Amino acid sequence: MDRSDGTGRAFVAGRKNLTEFVVEALVSAGADAADAALTADVLVAADLAGVDSHGVARLRRYVEGLRNRTINGRARPRVVRETGGVSVVDAGNGLGQPALCFAVDLAVERAKEHGVAAVAVRRSNHIGIAGWYTERAARSGTLALLTTNATPQVAPAGAAEPMFGTDPVSYALPTAGEPLCYDAATSIVPRGKLERLHREGKPMLAGWAVGPDGATSTDIPRVVAGLKAREGYALLPVGGLGEERGGHKGSGIGLLAELLCGPLAGASWSRHTYGPQGADLGQFVLCVDLAALGDAGSITRDVEAMAEEIRGAQRADEEVPVRLPGERRHRCAEERSEHGIPLLPPVVRDLGRIAELTGIKPLGAREVPA
Amino acid sequence: MDRSDGTGRAFVAGRKNLTEFVVEALVSAGADAADAALTADVLVAADLAGVDSHGVARLRRYVEGLRNRTINGRARPRVVRETGGVSVVDAGNGLGQPALCFAVDLAVERAKEHGVAAVAVRRSNHIGIAGWYTERAARSGTLALLTTNATPQVAPAGAAEPMFGTDPVSYALPTAGEPLCYDAATSIVPRGKLERLHREGKPMLAGWAVGPDGATSTDIPRVVAGLKAREGYALLPVGGLGEERGGHKGSGIGLLAELLCGPLAGASWSRHTYGPQGADLGQFVLCVDLAALGDAGSITRDVEAMAEEIRGAQRADEEVPVRLPGERRHRCAEERSEHGIPLLPPVVRDLGRIAELTGIKPLGAREVPA
Repeated sequence: MDRSDGTGRAFVAGRKNLTEFVVEALVSAGADAADAALTADVLVAADLAGVDSHGVARLRRYVEGLRNRTINGRARPRVVRETGGVSVVDAGNGLGQPALCFAVDLAVERAKEHGVAAVAVRRSNHIGIAGWYTERAARSGTLALLTTNATPQVAPAGAAEPMFGTDPVSYALPTAGEPLCYDAATSIVPRGKLERLHREGKPMLAGWAVGPDGATSTDIPRVVAGLKAREGYALLPVGGLGEERGGHKGSGIGLLAELLCGPLAGASWSRHTYGPQGADLGQFVLCVDLAALGDAGSITRDVEAMAEEIRGAQRADEEVPVRLPGERRHRCAEERSEHGIPLLPPVVRDLGRIAELTGIKPLGAREVPA
Repeated sequence: MDRSDGTGRAFVAGRKNLTEFVVEALVSAGADAADAALTADVLVAADLAGVDSHGVARLRRYVEGLRNRTINGRARPRVVRETGGVSVVDAGNGLGQPALCFAVDLAVERAKEHGVAAVAVRRSNHIGIAGWYTERAARSGTLALLTTNATPQVAPAGAAEPMFGTDPVSYALPTAGEPLCYDAATSIVPRGKLERLHREGKPMLAGWAVGPDGATSTDIPRVVAGLKAREGYALLPVGGLGEERGGHKGSGIGLLAELLCGPLAGASWSRHTYGPQGADLGQFVLCVDLAALGDAGSITRDVEAMAEEIRGAQRADEEVPVRLPGERRHRCAEERSEHGIPLLPPVVRDLGRIAELTGIKPLGAREVPA
């Protein structure tokens, strides 16, 4: 993790301080106190886990959305439809975190009752790190699968313009320790990674983005500007351009996310999101109670045995252990819980502006040697 | 589609003839008549759709398995556990097709009752083309998601030996016409594609397979021999070697398939499959009744509108339309239904040997100009 943006300055904040700052900022901007606390938890969990793009770097957009009423800080998620194990939740254009947490808890509850549950969320907003929710569900003894849509940035196979979001897909399963949790965007890289590489003077790779001419582009400033202006540049799904490395297959996983969160959830999708009535994002959660499939303890032990076998596989690089999804994030969270969360100077500046805007006490991140 | 294997000979069979041949071969080898008919349908559907690797090219292994009793031709799938919308099916080491078809029909029925259903299958065998089953479920008005495990051929991210099967993931949704159906192996390419390229004197690409040294290999004969002998060569997941094109993300989708079909279904996985008691493969099906989510007609129209928007996206190549998953297969099936199914000479030879072995009437594929 780079702790500097090239300015030679680097900052660190404690988990508790940062969380309190986020809560205060959200409450000052009009969020309900409990919703603010939950949203802060999810945002800071991303920073802890090293997924800095989904952490407090997003806070300014939340605060602005609440202040200009494009996000309703007093919304309450509401079940608008329920049939057996299936529920549809209207998030009322509130913060995405409390809405999705409500949906996931409902899915766990319904899965305990029906063995399996599906909950779709509509009129929702940005949810932060998807793995936070699936891990929560896994801790209750279920397999959880979750996806969300987002503003269009990714080209489907064969296309040269953004139609899909970077829509993360996450799943988690209980183990004796931390849940086994996969959480990844359906694009190879997010836009934020391109911006970081550019800041660091590093190149982007061919196959990550496509230009309006249908060829891959490695021109970071043009790709980033094109994505922001929706001017024909697009990120590419896992597998990259064309079919040579399975880009058409990666595209199909992105399409599944778009189908589940758009038409099936009754939410907007792609260019129809973020209209005058709010983002209207969709989320989709599936939970299966392990106890419905068999003895939950025995299934969990089988999962662990499988994980051990995979960790013990012949390594591609002798120096690099074979890792399971989530292990890197869990280790990072331990380390940062103890030593603090590094924040990039632009994020620290952003948090400073938020303090000015809302009149709350500034964060006071500690400057450290870069 | 190549209609020749370089011998200068090419053959074509009609759908009806080919289906009848498969039924007779399976029945002669000891399969129940109804199971044989269903299995023939699924196999020939693959040949029709252009997925030749999953069609009658597989028949010889089925016939041999039935004859030497590693597959039980008289097995009946049995529900061994049922909790709300969750069922576990023991396939009794029978043919995979009738077992999975039973499971999918059960999932549809339970989804109509509970809104959502999950059915896990254990002690199963090879299932043919996964999309056949999800399309069947979609025609009943559900979203279906399905995966199966298989013999290990794919290296997880960071590993240099096969631990995962090429495990296909398929999903399908109803539309006014054919279902929108995604069906793809979780590796970039299957072993069969390497064998075909080699026959045609064409190269394989870097990033498709990894050698025991952890580097990508493009030596087709060594890769294929290594895969067959389980000697350290492995195919790579969608995204390829390492993280540069999202290979770690593709690996996580393969892991999901292995988790669902192994520990969660209570079936064997990876190197533990195909033991002395049979293959003990697992399958996992999820169905969500669209009518539980909202007005099914309206959801289907939204799916179609989304599909239309994607088809109308700016093309990467002006000459190549943006296609949705399944469209190529559906077009191929129409074409082959009318003009016959091309069969490669080695497949025709295989079918000839099956006729000799079982004493049934030979297929009589028509030789055509190569």
